[in-house]
Amino acid sequence: MSGEKKISIAVIRRLPRYFRYLSDLIKLDIKRISSKELSQRMDITASQIRQDLNCFGGFGQQGYGYNVELLYEEVGKILGTDKGFKCIIVGAGNMGNAIANYENFKNRGFEMIGIFDVDPKKIGTVINNIKVLHLDDLDDFVKNHHVDIAILTVPNKHVVGVANKIKELGIKGIWNFTPTDLKLGDEVVVENVHLSDSLMVLGYKLKEKESE
Amino acid sequence: MSGEKKISIAVIRRLPRYFRYLSDLIKLDIKRISSKELSQRMDITASQIRQDLNCFGGFGQQGYGYNVELLYEEVGKILGTDKGFKCIIVGAGNMGNAIANYENFKNRGFEMIGIFDVDPKKIGTVINNIKVLHLDDLDDFVKNHHVDIAILTVPNKHVVGVANKIKELGIKGIWNFTPTDLKLGDEVVVENVHLSDSLMVLGYKLKEKESE
Repeated sequence: MSGEKKISIAVIRRLPRYFRYLSDLIKLDIKRISSKELSQRMDITASQIRQDLNCFGGFGQQGYGYNVELLYEEVGKILGTDKGFKCIIVGAGNMGNAIANYENFKNRGFEMIGIFDVDPKKIGTVINNIKVLHLDDLDDFVKNHHVDIAILTVPNKHVVGVANKIKELGIKGIWNFTPTDLKLGDEVVVENVHLSDSLMVLGYKLKEKESE
Repeated sequence: MSGEKKISIAVIRRLPRYFRYLSDLIKLDIKRISSKELSQRMDITASQIRQDLNCFGGFGQQGYGYNVELLYEEVGKILGTDKGFKCIIVGAGNMGNAIANYENFKNRGFEMIGIFDVDPKKIGTVINNIKVLHLDDLDDFVKNHHVDIAILTVPNKHVVGVANKIKELGIKGIWNFTPTDLKLGDEVVVENVHLSDSLMVLGYKLKEKESE
């Protein structure tokens, strides 16, 4: 059902949110839900929900609503959670530690299998059951383990060098936490995370609120 | 110029990105830029750029392009970077540490002025020149310091209690890193950050790429 027609990136960016809310509904043992109820929970209009979910076939039935588990599974399949992604973290600082310890990645299909750094004090330490290796060992590691995604939390001055190395090693996905927007051509898919963008939006909303 | 007409949230969410790129241009000593050049750097269409920047008056001149510094200042003003926001971090774990040490918040108008936790091992330690205080001291702290934004990096089970406390203390903005989408009514502006959403989008793009 999925993957047959091109879904816009705007819709794709909303899917993880559906996935989270559907996962919560399953935990609450809710079997089906109308677009109206889902709309109230998610703070998205019901018509937006119907439009989004129609993009990939539409799982709702008039008068019945959505089958929660079916929709959850289908959204997960579209996102690839059933496929599973093997990830490594490059940079064992605070952000690298936070990511390695984040509890919700694994049940979304992302498994952390390696952590790398260059700081002798960090090499050999264990973070959430993963031993920190030296970055020089990355080549060997990639020869012996399939790696889908490299998560970059290195200092900004090192990011271009590390990103090029990762590209050379044939890793196809980069989740980039450094301030530099990486552009590595068509071979590598990059998702740049800029935490400050979200904080600036909050600042804007706050300023608007105060001027009301 | 700003604040006079309502700008859509979709445009607002793109502004921090303009702000970042304009800041880079200033560092490169570039005085003016066409929408076409900016488009190539930012990977946004030139027509999108013109449309976005027209929302708040339009700073471009036909045949001249945009005055980089003027545009940077104006985007900053719209976002409130000139106003400045005082922030506290609640939760001195890895994510709290990462945020406290993040170098780019201050020059975007966000100053960290306090860090709170409940773990006796953390109380009294110093993170980026800020002493970690006990959460019980938050009331006193807020009496003596103006706080615009509380950044929540507490364990998920504590988030609702902490958020309600923050609301009671009259803090109007919450930047929430916990998995729980907070809804605190109209009094408090909340920006929920879900890191896994971005990772899931990366996973989707990777899966699509592999099936090409």
